[in-house]
Amino acid sequence: MHGSSELITLDDVRKAAIRISGSVVRTPLLPAPWAQRLALKPEGLQATGAFKLRGALNAVAMLAPDARARGVVTHSSGNHAQALAWAARLHGVAATVVMPDAAAPVKVEATRALGAEVVMVPAAERDSRVAELRAQRGLAFISPFDDLDVIAGAGTVGLEIIEDRPDLDTVLVPVGGGGLISGVSTAVKALAPEVRVVAVEPELAADLAESMAAGERVAWDTAATYRTIADGVRLPVVGELTWPHIQAHVDDVVTVGEDAILDAMALITTRSRVVAEPTGALAVAAFLAAPDRFGETAAVVTGGNADPALLARVLTGRTA
Amino acid sequence: MHGSSELITLDDVRKAAIRISGSVVRTPLLPAPWAQRLALKPEGLQATGAFKLRGALNAVAMLAPDARARGVVTHSSGNHAQALAWAARLHGVAATVVMPDAAAPVKVEATRALGAEVVMVPAAERDSRVAELRAQRGLAFISPFDDLDVIAGAGTVGLEIIEDRPDLDTVLVPVGGGGLISGVSTAVKALAPEVRVVAVEPELAADLAESMAAGERVAWDTAATYRTIADGVRLPVVGELTWPHIQAHVDDVVTVGEDAILDAMALITTRSRVVAEPTGALAVAAFLAAPDRFGETAAVVTGGNADPALLARVLTGRTA
Repeated sequence: MHGSSELITLDDVRKAAIRISGSVVRTPLLPAPWAQRLALKPEGLQATGAFKLRGALNAVAMLAPDARARGVVTHSSGNHAQALAWAARLHGVAATVVMPDAAAPVKVEATRALGAEVVMVPAAERDSRVAELRAQRGLAFISPFDDLDVIAGAGTVGLEIIEDRPDLDTVLVPVGGGGLISGVSTAVKALAPEVRVVAVEPELAADLAESMAAGERVAWDTAATYRTIADGVRLPVVGELTWPHIQAHVDDVVTVGEDAILDAMALITTRSRVVAEPTGALAVAAFLAAPDRFGETAAVVTGGNADPALLARVLTGRTA
Repeated sequence: MHGSSELITLDDVRKAAIRISGSVVRTPLLPAPWAQRLALKPEGLQATGAFKLRGALNAVAMLAPDARARGVVTHSSGNHAQALAWAARLHGVAATVVMPDAAAPVKVEATRALGAEVVMVPAAERDSRVAELRAQRGLAFISPFDDLDVIAGAGTVGLEIIEDRPDLDTVLVPVGGGGLISGVSTAVKALAPEVRVVAVEPELAADLAESMAAGERVAWDTAATYRTIADGVRLPVVGELTWPHIQAHVDDVVTVGEDAILDAMALITTRSRVVAEPTGALAVAAFLAAPDRFGETAAVVTGGNADPALLARVLTGRTA
């Protein structure tokens, strides 16, 4: 068990890597021939299309036998929902996912198809409904990001990046709740302290930039963050558990505009031939905005669950 | 040196793998969660977007010093052109590519951007112009498929597939000139003789199916093969050097229709999140046409250089 103010360590990430190997794709680091000094970590190749599978698998694998028998619950309308459903199914654990009424029907169906029970609620009742399910059924809550086992699982992305390219200057990582960058920065700084870890946010959801400037967590209005197309990082503030990891390990934060996100999405998809969802394009967008700033760079392409209509629009917008 | 009637061996493929490692992406085998018993070998992740880079790199690396000094020539309007240009640039060798006048300007530009000299000719003058360049400049001709070093390089795809999944029942491989399947089947049959290697062609370019039925190479009209959207396999007949490999190692051939190709292209792109060009979707289309026929299957997704407008059309056609 971890205490709430504890930081995970390289050892936690290494153990997570062993625990989830065989159930995740060991993604290659792809040199981007269309941008010098840039390589992509294409996490859209995971079975559920995003890095989230790593954290969910580690967290489910870490459950005590009694918790495993009772089942898990989370809230998500995005990639964590499918990741947890997939991980729970693999381990024979019942999964319940609380989703907002407004969630896209295709995502609800995808989560159900993986065997999870989906509970639809008005967005404002999300947390209370999760609390109710925990109390009534004894379900273990697995946060999309603010969970040390989820962070350790996500950190395997950083472990693999440094295994492949210990010579890097910079790793660029999109940030919403901060789970991915907490794990990645833990692994990177332990293995290669001279490699800079830089967070990337949309300008329209730049609560971490404000938090880092202030030296304390600053929350945005959730509604404000919903202006960005990068739906994976529409969160008002980083987590209580992720914030100390970010403070300890992250060197800098940069922000990117909406057009830059869509441009990067098109480039990744057409020139590196892996589908990027908007959130998955954030790190590449940051690199392209200042290609001489970061040196030899790995950009984490967090996921590929792009809406086909949006992807088609982005593709034709660049060729019309 | 290889004689023209010689078959390459597993040893040739293994040496090719060593020769090209570090310059190619060691692509993972991706389980397709949307189709039971199917895994994809996503060769669109290579720097030039197709498996062709493997053969071109091996062939350029095998050049004798005097040939290397004079340079290489090929004909291609497709993925081999960029692969050879890329491989030649890496090795500091001059590359000349003969392309038909009708080649897409974007492909001409991409080949030039990689440092190759592009010579545009009327399609009917292709072979004579290549012969002229060989005679005048002493250039070494590197065929897109009918070259034992190219075949050995392409065979590394098969080596990796069996390394990852020796338990497979079937490997499905698209066939145009036959270079890929010649190399892949050599590796697969040497390492795991019980694994079936099945060729896939479009119904509209099914010269191999006819050749295998006849027991001898049967050529189609080139114009007839141009009816298929799978532009990587619009070839009238398999090669003189590839045909004996196919006869020795390939178990069967299946054909797929044009709609099935486009459907598979959409599924690969949206559900496995790697971009597939039409030729790259052939093997998956064959699997989906008879999902109970092949058992545990690896489908080679040969490349991802899809025209963005076509990709957009395929994506929206399935969501509209």
